[in-house]
Amino acid sequence: MAKVAVLGSGSWGTALSIVLSDNGHEVSLWGRSENQVNAINEDRINTRYLPEIELPENITAYTRIGDALNKADVILAVVPTKAMREVLKTAREHIEKPLLFVHASKGIEPESHMRISEIIEEEIPESLRTGVVALSGPSHAEEVCRRQPTTVTSSSLIMKHAEQVQDLFMNQHFRVYTNPDLIGVEIGGALKNIIAIGTGMTYGIGFGDNAKAALMTRGLAEIARLGLKLGATPLTFAGLSGLGDLIVTCTSIHSRNWRAGNMLGKGKSVDEVEAEMGMVVEGIRTTKAAYQVAKATGVEMPITEELYHVLFDNKPAKEAVTELMGRVKKHEVEDLKLGDQDPLNHFEP
Amino acid sequence: MAKVAVLGSGSWGTALSIVLSDNGHEVSLWGRSENQVNAINEDRINTRYLPEIELPENITAYTRIGDALNKADVILAVVPTKAMREVLKTAREHIEKPLLFVHASKGIEPESHMRISEIIEEEIPESLRTGVVALSGPSHAEEVCRRQPTTVTSSSLIMKHAEQVQDLFMNQHFRVYTNPDLIGVEIGGALKNIIAIGTGMTYGIGFGDNAKAALMTRGLAEIARLGLKLGATPLTFAGLSGLGDLIVTCTSIHSRNWRAGNMLGKGKSVDEVEAEMGMVVEGIRTTKAAYQVAKATGVEMPITEELYHVLFDNKPAKEAVTELMGRVKKHEVEDLKLGDQDPLNHFEP
Repeated sequence: MAKVAVLGSGSWGTALSIVLSDNGHEVSLWGRSENQVNAINEDRINTRYLPEIELPENITAYTRIGDALNKADVILAVVPTKAMREVLKTAREHIEKPLLFVHASKGIEPESHMRISEIIEEEIPESLRTGVVALSGPSHAEEVCRRQPTTVTSSSLIMKHAEQVQDLFMNQHFRVYTNPDLIGVEIGGALKNIIAIGTGMTYGIGFGDNAKAALMTRGLAEIARLGLKLGATPLTFAGLSGLGDLIVTCTSIHSRNWRAGNMLGKGKSVDEVEAEMGMVVEGIRTTKAAYQVAKATGVEMPITEELYHVLFDNKPAKEAVTELMGRVKKHEVEDLKLGDQDPLNHFEP
Repeated sequence: MAKVAVLGSGSWGTALSIVLSDNGHEVSLWGRSENQVNAINEDRINTRYLPEIELPENITAYTRIGDALNKADVILAVVPTKAMREVLKTAREHIEKPLLFVHASKGIEPESHMRISEIIEEEIPESLRTGVVALSGPSHAEEVCRRQPTTVTSSSLIMKHAEQVQDLFMNQHFRVYTNPDLIGVEIGGALKNIIAIGTGMTYGIGFGDNAKAALMTRGLAEIARLGLKLGATPLTFAGLSGLGDLIVTCTSIHSRNWRAGNMLGKGKSVDEVEAEMGMVVEGIRTTKAAYQVAKATGVEMPITEELYHVLFDNKPAKEAVTELMGRVKKHEVEDLKLGDQDPLNHFEP
């Protein structure tokens, strides 16, 4: 059995702590809030994020990262992307032996445009880590806590490390698959939040399921286009961390990115939405980062582009969605193919 | 402007009649029921299928196929798959000049395992048809009738014919793309109903969004595997008639296949479900046909196989879904790749 330090006590960090605990591992859960940490240790409850879930006894919460890291074999980082670098810097000061680094966050860092695993590699010296693994896939935290069937992907450039994480988390309810395409897994998980904001927006405007399906289909195609440009394997976007996560995030009103988009579609401003949510909406920052990367690499991403203009240029949501739905392209294959360098091109007649 | 004979006055035939009518075409709508035909002509309403939609004046309904075909330039066949051959046989007797044949039905014929376009080619002599086109994609009829944004695919082996159909239907709300992969478009449209029954079933059993997303992801992979074996282009399954239609059908409680699956998951028998629905559930017959084709061609289709056992061998739904979710495969790529002949294989490391 391992000792795992889970950094981040939001709903997803807490849910993954329960999976680890169910598998017999010892979990040290780090959170910033003293009240929250006390409630977890004394009342066995994460009041703010998962008020209806009883936490097992072998999860102990701490407010100091150093305490959570004490004697840990594995670090699981589950903080918002914008906080990741700072948390890793603090953690680094308390690491005494090389650890396995796992993350389950979904975003791209603003400015640097780095994926989470790249931030880990930059902040944690090689002498302090045995491996870097991303855990991603279609997984509402609430359902995982209720032991509902869930499947996710464990991804690392080195398959042995992905398999170590698979062994840590796999159980009867929580199925873990491995995939060596770390770039594709991280890009899919991060960028699906953009499309979730877009689908929420179409609902907010009053459009229906037909528009949603069209947007998701085109959305996955543009995510795959960018991913391919960045070195990902196209097949990954058809898997759990791509299509699977896109489905969960875009078709459930529990998704915070979907809800943010829905409010935007109903006419609220970005500031109003962020204030009302009271939680980080990763997709807003991811839209900006993806827009910039697309521009820099010359990849066509019409949905991301329209959403960027809504979020950062005050473009009316309805105008953006109407333009997207009305885009004139005669042939479907033009829209789906991944560009001139597209290895799928040879399928076309 | 064209004169189009629409054969089949269910919700989808009626919705497509409205699109054609909006574009200025003259529509002759054939239906079996005298009451329904009278209500359409006199009250401008399809009482049974779309009670809340007012039909435009330039749609005229008939109970005799010969009357509907009088002076028609185009036939649009939208009847259940099991009725398609008989309707075409009757229509053939009344055709006086070569017509463009379009269909918007989604199924595979039992026993023969033919796609709809193959049935058309078998029943209508070449001298009586100018082309054969399939219209398919994510499209709830109710939303199309309300002029909500909708995107579909027009597919034919001969692109000129697909483009003729694109021109007939395309308008501001109803966007039509072309795709020359007729096999892929028809297979995707038909087989997505299998996965819709499966996702409805998981909900009926009490599982959540995580299980739904996993099933849809694996479902699309097995549809693409069979499609590739039958000569389809893999890329088509990532498009509107594949992924797009899968999303609409599996994530909306309006889908009759989803509802049928949901009842099965709650413990009802197939006979009870069919009696209660009062409408054709295409996916039930498609499951049988796809199961047989998969066996005959040696394609692995675990979801289709489990569903076949539920529908035709009295296997308990919960047992089938639990087995599906628990299937042990360590590596995601094993599940996603399309077989030994898979042209995507070279993406793998």
